[in-house]
Amino acid sequence: MKKTINIGLCGLGTVGSGVFRLFSSNADLIAQRTGTEIVITRVATLDRYDHLGLELSRTTVTRSVDDILGDDTIDIVVELIGGTGIAKEIILRALATDRSVVTANKALLAEYSKEVFEAAYGSRGSLGFEAAVAGGIPIIRSIRQGLAGDRIQAISGIVNGTANYILSAMTHNGIDFDTALKKAKQQGYAEADPTFDIEGIDSAHKLLLLMELAYHRYFDFNQLPIEGISKIDATDIAIARELGCVIKLLACTRQSQDGFEASVHPAMVRNDSMLASVSVACNAVSLQGDFAGHIMEYGAGAGSHPTASAVAADMIEISRALIEDRSPFMLPLMVPHDQLTDGRILPLEQTESAFCLRVDLNESSAERAAVLQCLTQQQIELKSLMLRSAGDDSRPVACLVVTTEKTSEGRVKAVLPVLQSLPSVIAPVKLIRMVD
Amino acid sequence: MKKTINIGLCGLGTVGSGVFRLFSSNADLIAQRTGTEIVITRVATLDRYDHLGLELSRTTVTRSVDDILGDDTIDIVVELIGGTGIAKEIILRALATDRSVVTANKALLAEYSKEVFEAAYGSRGSLGFEAAVAGGIPIIRSIRQGLAGDRIQAISGIVNGTANYILSAMTHNGIDFDTALKKAKQQGYAEADPTFDIEGIDSAHKLLLLMELAYHRYFDFNQLPIEGISKIDATDIAIARELGCVIKLLACTRQSQDGFEASVHPAMVRNDSMLASVSVACNAVSLQGDFAGHIMEYGAGAGSHPTASAVAADMIEISRALIEDRSPFMLPLMVPHDQLTDGRILPLEQTESAFCLRVDLNESSAERAAVLQCLTQQQIELKSLMLRSAGDDSRPVACLVVTTEKTSEGRVKAVLPVLQSLPSVIAPVKLIRMVD
Repeated sequence: MKKTINIGLCGLGTVGSGVFRLFSSNADLIAQRTGTEIVITRVATLDRYDHLGLELSRTTVTRSVDDILGDDTIDIVVELIGGTGIAKEIILRALATDRSVVTANKALLAEYSKEVFEAAYGSRGSLGFEAAVAGGIPIIRSIRQGLAGDRIQAISGIVNGTANYILSAMTHNGIDFDTALKKAKQQGYAEADPTFDIEGIDSAHKLLLLMELAYHRYFDFNQLPIEGISKIDATDIAIARELGCVIKLLACTRQSQDGFEASVHPAMVRNDSMLASVSVACNAVSLQGDFAGHIMEYGAGAGSHPTASAVAADMIEISRALIEDRSPFMLPLMVPHDQLTDGRILPLEQTESAFCLRVDLNESSAERAAVLQCLTQQQIELKSLMLRSAGDDSRPVACLVVTTEKTSEGRVKAVLPVLQSLPSVIAPVKLIRMVD
Repeated sequence: MKKTINIGLCGLGTVGSGVFRLFSSNADLIAQRTGTEIVITRVATLDRYDHLGLELSRTTVTRSVDDILGDDTIDIVVELIGGTGIAKEIILRALATDRSVVTANKALLAEYSKEVFEAAYGSRGSLGFEAAVAGGIPIIRSIRQGLAGDRIQAISGIVNGTANYILSAMTHNGIDFDTALKKAKQQGYAEADPTFDIEGIDSAHKLLLLMELAYHRYFDFNQLPIEGISKIDATDIAIARELGCVIKLLACTRQSQDGFEASVHPAMVRNDSMLASVSVACNAVSLQGDFAGHIMEYGAGAGSHPTASAVAADMIEISRALIEDRSPFMLPLMVPHDQLTDGRILPLEQTESAFCLRVDLNESSAERAAVLQCLTQQQIELKSLMLRSAGDDSRPVACLVVTTEKTSEGRVKAVLPVLQSLPSVIAPVKLIRMVD
């Protein structure tokens, strides 16, 4: 039995330093639980670290990841640099030398899924990525082990804390998108370049990983329809409120008769649903298993300590396997390599949803009738109709809000250019999905 | 490598038949995930089963559990009979012969913890009990694996669907306890004898298991303070509403400087908290890890299929270990046997909480002042005060509702007999904890 597990930690930023602190702070507990010592023997970082106050007596700090990859005594390589550059090289090289890898790198795993997971299947090492989805929430384990006997039918989650912070601020403080984004940056909830977060790309990375795990298939990230929240304005938020909803950025997938539905998009979520009460920078993921039924897990989706907790869980599980000198503790995507197939994401047009349509138009009853006629001609069944005043006395504007019954997205989208071409429609027609 | 895992299923009631259905219905998926076949080769039941429509071509049904325990080809014994009689014998005998056991039996594991877990530690078989707490919610795994690097600081959960159904019905339909209980029985949410559910005993069983797992200690079930919901009346529900809360039956534990706090009790939970939105027969468990932070898991806490999902998860995880012919996949209580100690639950009097006190008294301002004086003399800091009218014109009754700041339970309890002895107090003084 191995007595010590040696860790090589690449990256000492927010998450990396959190992992270091966790293993310092809970060393006794982890030793008690694993029956072994897990020691971070090497750290590679280009950043300054003296201000972090880490206890480095058993750790060699280096500037080159080669010092970690070239060290035969390292059992687990923890990649916390992120991105798809050097991180990819680290992971592939570590797996190629049969070392186990733990990473929080959703961008890499989603965009280079097949390449990275195939390397993991070909390695005697394991690949842990609990931290790549929803930070401290053990959602990967819940799919992999908790629902091991279930067919997963649907997943729907709030998996980006930045976007949820912005939408929550817009909802609770009545501020517009730009002000909310500025506030998020000030409070450290948004990065200098927030594109990945607000445009839904980060959520899409996480969704793709959940799908590959749940459905045992590789999906092409480029097939995933993604819509962010940057076009959501204060009026949308107010309309949602009047409809008894809040707007959330959702990552959704569903296995239907026709195939795999998936998309990232803002959606109106009913106030009394559990997802609606996920506010500020938290995450929540809802799973539908054919036997377990509906399960939701909620928690901190990011941050140094919560993400470190997820990284540590993988490190500990892999260490347990290494101590017993047994084969990889878990198959990367739950099933043996030869059982994996390629999956295709259904085009959005072929999926169904209820919608909220917002048409801003000059005061003109005739045009209002025309809008409704367009919808009826497309056989879109309306559920509710609301007329809001906007603009001012000199230039009265009406905002026509229509909600529909469940209908095909293709049918609704076909009507958009027709509506847009009506002479008194003065702004882009908006379409927001509504979920139960 | 073993090609088939043989299961002996004891009990074919609600959960047992659900497990049977799961393994029929998802056989292909499970084979794909485990690389082996898991076959229920024997079922022991005293009940009729012909009406269940089960596909029994590979299964021998017997009336005696001896046929399962005596069959050397059985790898995993699944105990779904429940209770502390024959179930205990089955589990101990199976473990004694190095067979693995999966059970949903919280009463047995909580009341005979030490005996059963020690048998599991002494066996080459594993003991899986995911289904014993919160049905389909994979909370045991989240503690055991998801938070493997975390010190668990607190747990608080709604873990009894019957009690939650009754409280939800009282809250939403304005009905009294007896009517709500009758409704629960009619809808199949309460058993003929609902004592375990409504008196908090079932919740306490689950809490004890969560505590033993989270703290790596044996606790004495008899030390656990338990208060049920049978004394909650419509006025309490109305008072909670006026305070912006709902009443929930909570199972709570916290590791403090002084030791382990734990109890089951009805509590006022703020409307905007996640636990408040857990309605009808659902369960939710909230965990506080020192690194992961606050995590909540929500789902179906009971029922044939959700509980079967949890049983199946254990069966699959144990099967994976058996296939690889490795040692038990998991230590019963997360740490090696020699690391387990006995834990002591702090007496409730030594714990702190905010409280809501309800004093029903004849209209008399002097007595109202006396109530407040009693509280002040005990140095109990008041947070709010509310006077409600009750009774009728011929016999006016006032209901004095006082909420307190956080204070020691001992201090509040000391004042109860004094209040009770005031001449115009006409009903037992009520004390309900308030949680954030």
